[in-house]
Amino acid sequence: MNTNKLKNFARLAVEFGVNLKEGEDLLISSPIEEPRLARLITEEAYKKGARKVSINWQDDELTRLTYKYRSQETLNEVADWEIAKLDYQIAEKLSNRISIHSQDPDLLKGLDEKKIAEAIKVRSQATKKYVKYTMNDILSWLVISVPTEKWAKKVFPNLEKEKALEKLWQVIFDVTRIDEDWEITKSNWENHIETLNKKAKFLNDYQFDKVHYTSKNGTDLWVELPKDHIWMSAGSTNAKNDMFIPNMPTEEIFTSPKKDGVNGRLVATKPLVYNGLLINNFEFTFKDGKVVDFKAEVGEDTLEEMLNSDQGSRYLGEIALVAYNSPISNSNILFYNTLFDENASCHFALGKAYPTTVKGASDLKDEELSKIGLNDSLIHEDFMVGDKDLNIKGYKGEKEVDIFVDGNFAL
Amino acid sequence: MNTNKLKNFARLAVEFGVNLKEGEDLLISSPIEEPRLARLITEEAYKKGARKVSINWQDDELTRLTYKYRSQETLNEVADWEIAKLDYQIAEKLSNRISIHSQDPDLLKGLDEKKIAEAIKVRSQATKKYVKYTMNDILSWLVISVPTEKWAKKVFPNLEKEKALEKLWQVIFDVTRIDEDWEITKSNWENHIETLNKKAKFLNDYQFDKVHYTSKNGTDLWVELPKDHIWMSAGSTNAKNDMFIPNMPTEEIFTSPKKDGVNGRLVATKPLVYNGLLINNFEFTFKDGKVVDFKAEVGEDTLEEMLNSDQGSRYLGEIALVAYNSPISNSNILFYNTLFDENASCHFALGKAYPTTVKGASDLKDEELSKIGLNDSLIHEDFMVGDKDLNIKGYKGEKEVDIFVDGNFAL
Repeated sequence: MNTNKLKNFARLAVEFGVNLKEGEDLLISSPIEEPRLARLITEEAYKKGARKVSINWQDDELTRLTYKYRSQETLNEVADWEIAKLDYQIAEKLSNRISIHSQDPDLLKGLDEKKIAEAIKVRSQATKKYVKYTMNDILSWLVISVPTEKWAKKVFPNLEKEKALEKLWQVIFDVTRIDEDWEITKSNWENHIETLNKKAKFLNDYQFDKVHYTSKNGTDLWVELPKDHIWMSAGSTNAKNDMFIPNMPTEEIFTSPKKDGVNGRLVATKPLVYNGLLINNFEFTFKDGKVVDFKAEVGEDTLEEMLNSDQGSRYLGEIALVAYNSPISNSNILFYNTLFDENASCHFALGKAYPTTVKGASDLKDEELSKIGLNDSLIHEDFMVGDKDLNIKGYKGEKEVDIFVDGNFAL
Repeated sequence: MNTNKLKNFARLAVEFGVNLKEGEDLLISSPIEEPRLARLITEEAYKKGARKVSINWQDDELTRLTYKYRSQETLNEVADWEIAKLDYQIAEKLSNRISIHSQDPDLLKGLDEKKIAEAIKVRSQATKKYVKYTMNDILSWLVISVPTEKWAKKVFPNLEKEKALEKLWQVIFDVTRIDEDWEITKSNWENHIETLNKKAKFLNDYQFDKVHYTSKNGTDLWVELPKDHIWMSAGSTNAKNDMFIPNMPTEEIFTSPKKDGVNGRLVATKPLVYNGLLINNFEFTFKDGKVVDFKAEVGEDTLEEMLNSDQGSRYLGEIALVAYNSPISNSNILFYNTLFDENASCHFALGKAYPTTVKGASDLKDEELSKIGLNDSLIHEDFMVGDKDLNIKGYKGEKEVDIFVDGNFAL
């Protein structure tokens, strides 16, 4: 692994990712198996004047033991101190958050899905009020990944452990536009942000009423867009008006669909890992926004658990555009990790919509968000629909405009 | 590293160490660098019916960054949620505690000692009320160690990293009496406990008024013992009346000195790592229990910081006997880790005395403990005084008895 690139990754995460300012707190979550990036980020953050950097260490093996052995009752338990910790780190200190996400895609395979789903749901309900701090961009947040052994072996099953890890490092550096030289890394990101912003601006200026997805795989979906919707790209703005970049890599331009304005058939083009369980070759039928039918070749039970999470989990909360001809997509690698797979492909998310995607909506209450067509749910799960045959047309009144032709932007 | 021995280590820690019972909680602290034992302990605990196993992961490198970069103000900050966590895990759930201690002996070298000492003192004060749960054996607790790279290289500076780690694993398994076979491991410990108990019983039956330490290195110290003192050995008993073993390995028999009854010169025979800083070739002069003079060839400032921690930090809180001819001592290895070094050598501790070492004292308040001669302090720091020339005599009224002759038990 290239240590210069690793250092630039840390600097990129702190400077461009969360864009940490002097006196602010930082909260990192990191796998224990690969702590080097977390340590470099910590040092970089302190050098930028961070007040306090804290780490929540994750260990896949312990997570698996937890779900395997604990009773439903203790899994459902959310202790007062855990809420007090969120109150302090999130609500009070508005800590910048960097999540280093590198889960084994098969982590929870073979365990009791219903038990796990209930535990996650109960925890999500107990901590729901903290979701807005990220979903509404009140604080700066960033999701990145580092290679871990089981994930690397899942992505490159034919390589030996060390080679798989090395290869995954290379790919992550490449698609995250990280160079050995900091100035080049920096200008890579400045240019990339500008390119994405231009496309978003075009779509924002047009303010399409609805879009129509078709592909040879059977996708034929109409999606209405809310009034005053905003197509967001790489950069977001936090409550202090500082820009940050929530995902690295990022290739997407996204907004929210109108909750009850989605109709037709939508066929997924990549597998999805939900709560450590794999779902593959699946599709949905929507009527007035709701998933009224679905099937999956792999993980249909898991998909059903996900759709039955709550009242909002059968409705869409995100619609995102990614060119078929883009770095992650061109790598032709299936990552089994949403951060990468979603940035390789046009995608949707089931569940909660980002209030930031409609003008003035960040300050609205849940009921008001619902009125303007933004879905609410405890879940927000991306799934991929892009392929080389995808066409997307936008409609504004009588006018019809090609947005995507044969998988790529036609703008 | 021998995986059978590792499994037996985990089983030993759960069954003999904390002696975990069904429905109890377990709280582990472990270095992220060597998570295998913590994972095996977790699984073993769940198999024994643990309700909930939690882990506090430690990372030396982050600890160093924390002390290096944070301001005194933020280092001194103890957040409400941290107290709430202790309230829940320690005071409410009485979690069994297993601390896997494997710190780099030079961890904090070169940093601001005063800043670190103040931060540790403030935190100790804020969390003082939770100390009794271990010091009074209210819950079961256990300290063990696993090799980590910097520690292994400090112990075996001439070996390469992998060899140093492997060697340290071997030594830890050996001195902890762990065999590849569980039944042998089990009987090793049953026999060892019995042997230590016999020695403790002899001393307890005698109830010496005072003991006299002399050695060719200059040690000449009188230590009075409190009325009804108890010499403890390997096993302790928690508030539920379950036996547990707080240290693995353990070779010591210990009690408390009478706070104001210590007089003379005491020369340390091994280095001490205090808060990540090394102190070496040091000695003390005591008058009426108090350290009135001291010197150290290495780390004299650190020693001074330690002695000035609070009102009780210049008085002794523990007196412990370990034969010069015993497994850890015979290994001739300097571990720079108190768990091992204290069990290789007769030692004392400066600071708080264990209330469990005087009959009926566990239920007494701080003021009452002081009256019967037990010292109170925020610190409890062991330091080694054993060598091949150490003689210890016990005095009961007119009677003089050899306890140690030439470094070994004369009982």
